[in-house]
Amino acid sequence: MSEFDLIRTYFNRLGSPRADVSIDIGDDAAVVDVAADRQLVLAVDTMVAGVHFPVDTPADAIGYKALTVNLSDLAAMGAEPAWALLAITLPSADIDWIEAFCSGFHRLAAQFGLRCIGGDTTRGPLTISVTVAGTVPRGHALTRRGAKVGDAIYVTGNIGDAGLGLEAAFGRWSGPNSKSFLQRLYYPTPRVEMGRVLRDYASAAIDVSDGLLADLGHVLHASGVGARLELTAIPVSAEVLSHGGYDFALAAGDDYELCFTVPKAKQRAMENALAQNGLVAYRIGEITAAQGLKCIAGNGEIHQIKSIGYNHFA
Amino acid sequence: MSEFDLIRTYFNRLGSPRADVSIDIGDDAAVVDVAADRQLVLAVDTMVAGVHFPVDTPADAIGYKALTVNLSDLAAMGAEPAWALLAITLPSADIDWIEAFCSGFHRLAAQFGLRCIGGDTTRGPLTISVTVAGTVPRGHALTRRGAKVGDAIYVTGNIGDAGLGLEAAFGRWSGPNSKSFLQRLYYPTPRVEMGRVLRDYASAAIDVSDGLLADLGHVLHASGVGARLELTAIPVSAEVLSHGGYDFALAAGDDYELCFTVPKAKQRAMENALAQNGLVAYRIGEITAAQGLKCIAGNGEIHQIKSIGYNHFA
Repeated sequence: MSEFDLIRTYFNRLGSPRADVSIDIGDDAAVVDVAADRQLVLAVDTMVAGVHFPVDTPADAIGYKALTVNLSDLAAMGAEPAWALLAITLPSADIDWIEAFCSGFHRLAAQFGLRCIGGDTTRGPLTISVTVAGTVPRGHALTRRGAKVGDAIYVTGNIGDAGLGLEAAFGRWSGPNSKSFLQRLYYPTPRVEMGRVLRDYASAAIDVSDGLLADLGHVLHASGVGARLELTAIPVSAEVLSHGGYDFALAAGDDYELCFTVPKAKQRAMENALAQNGLVAYRIGEITAAQGLKCIAGNGEIHQIKSIGYNHFA
Repeated sequence: MSEFDLIRTYFNRLGSPRADVSIDIGDDAAVVDVAADRQLVLAVDTMVAGVHFPVDTPADAIGYKALTVNLSDLAAMGAEPAWALLAITLPSADIDWIEAFCSGFHRLAAQFGLRCIGGDTTRGPLTISVTVAGTVPRGHALTRRGAKVGDAIYVTGNIGDAGLGLEAAFGRWSGPNSKSFLQRLYYPTPRVEMGRVLRDYASAAIDVSDGLLADLGHVLHASGVGARLELTAIPVSAEVLSHGGYDFALAAGDDYELCFTVPKAKQRAMENALAQNGLVAYRIGEITAAQGLKCIAGNGEIHQIKSIGYNHFA
C-alpha cells in the first residue's frame, strides 16, 4: 500500500464536513473561507513517542491527545476550532494502529465540528504534529499579557491529575481509581466552551500544559506583574496530595485546564456566565504588583516551591 | 538553556513583520487578519532526517527547504504566502545548527514577505514540519481537477536536476558542475510568482515533488483524463540524461517545478503573461480522452516507463 492510498483511505474523512471548506484534502493545499467579522487563530503542537507519551500509549489516546493539546491552545485564546492539518511520521504502515489513531482523532474533531483538511504522512520515528486553525470575533482574542494588579486568578479544574496518571502509566503509583487518572492523562478535555465564555470577561488566559506554576509564570512575565496563590484553594485531588504534595501538583503538566485572570468588577458576572453554561472555575489567588509568584500555605506561611515545570532540553 | 529561551531567541523573528499579524509568536496561538475578498490556503509538509534529506545536509539548506516545499504547494494553488508555523523536533539544543537552520528559513521567508507566527520545539529525532498559510482571491485557487481534453501540458523548468543532486550527495555521481545540481536539490525555488500569474489561465496545476509522472498522474486521476507527453519536449539536462535517461528524470522527485494545463484558447495569452513577468514554461504534451499516460520518444514510438515516483512506505 502506497503513502497515497494510506492517506486517501484513513485520513480523508477525519472530523465533520464543513460548508466553509472550499477545497478539502487531496490537492496541494486546502482552501477555506474565514468570515469577514472574524480573525484567524493558528497553533501547532508536536508529540514525539517516548518524549510526550510512553511508547505503549494506546493509539486511540495518541490520536485524541494530538488534537486536544491544540484545541486547548485555541481555548486559551477564546477561539472556536474549525480546521486541522495532520502531519504524522510513522515507523511503518500499521493499519490497525492507524485505524485506532484515527478513531481517537475523529471522535474529538467531530465533537467540536472540526474538519481535518490536510496533512502529510511520512516514514520515520513516530511523531505527530497537528496544526489547528480557528476563528475569534475580531479583536476579542484572549492573550497572556492583560493581567492587572488586583485581578483574581482562576483555574478550571484539578491540577496534577494527569501527572499522577503518568506516574500510574510508568508503574510508579497505583490506587483503586488509577484508571480515572490515566483517563485524565490520555483524554484531557479541551476547555473550548470555557474559552468562548471567558473572552467577554478574562483579562488574560493560558492553558496549563507545562504545569500551573510554569504556565502562570508565562502570564505574569507577559503582563509584567506578580501573583499570590492560596495553596488550599487550588483544586488538587487527595491521591495527588498524598503521592507528591503541592510541589508535585504545581509542577505536573498535561492537565490542559485553563488558568485565567479576571478584573474584580467582572468576577460576579463571569461566575454567573459560567454557571449559566454549566461550567465551573476555582478562584486560587490574586495578581500582585510585587513581582514573582508566592504560594501561601494553609497556615498562612509562604510555601517554598521546589521545582517548576518540564524542560524538554534538560 | 530551556525550550522557552531557545524559542524566544531564535524562532521569534523569522521572516518579515506583517501588518496583518495581530498576535505573533509568544502566546498560546497566533491571531491574524484575512482580507474579506480572499480565501485562506493551508498546507503542511514534514521532512525527516535520513528519509527526506541525508543526515549531513547543511542546516541552512534544511531550513530553506523545509519552507520551500510548502511554498511550492501554495504556488501550485496560485496562492500568495503570508504566515508559517514551524514545528521542529531536535535531538539536542545545538545552537550553531539552529542558527544555520534559521538563516536558511529566514532568507526565503523574507523574500516572500512571510512571517513565522508560531511553532513548537520538541526533543526527539530530527523532524521538521512546516505549516504555511496564504491567501488567494475568492474562487480563484488552482486545483488538480480542472484539466480538460485538448489542454496543453506545461512544466516550469528542468526535471531530474534535484534527483541528480541527490545522486551527487550520496557519491553516486559527480561531474564538473556537481555543485549546481546540489544547489537544485538543496535550494529549489518555489514558483510563487508563476502560480500567481497562472491562476488566470491554467485549468489545473500541481508541484513536482514526487516525480513528474507521479504528480502529473495525480492531475490526470483528479481530472478523469489521460495525457500524451513528448519526451524530447521535456526540459532535462544533458547530465541527467547521460546518468539515468528519461526514466530517471521522470521518476526523480524534489524539483519543485510546477506542472500545469492550459486550454488551447488561453495558451497565447498565458505565454504573453509569463513573458511580461520574465517567466518561462515548457509545453511538454497534451491532455487526452484516452486514460493513462503515454510518453512518445523522439522516433515517434511509445516509450515504456520503468518506474513512477517515490513511495515512502515501499
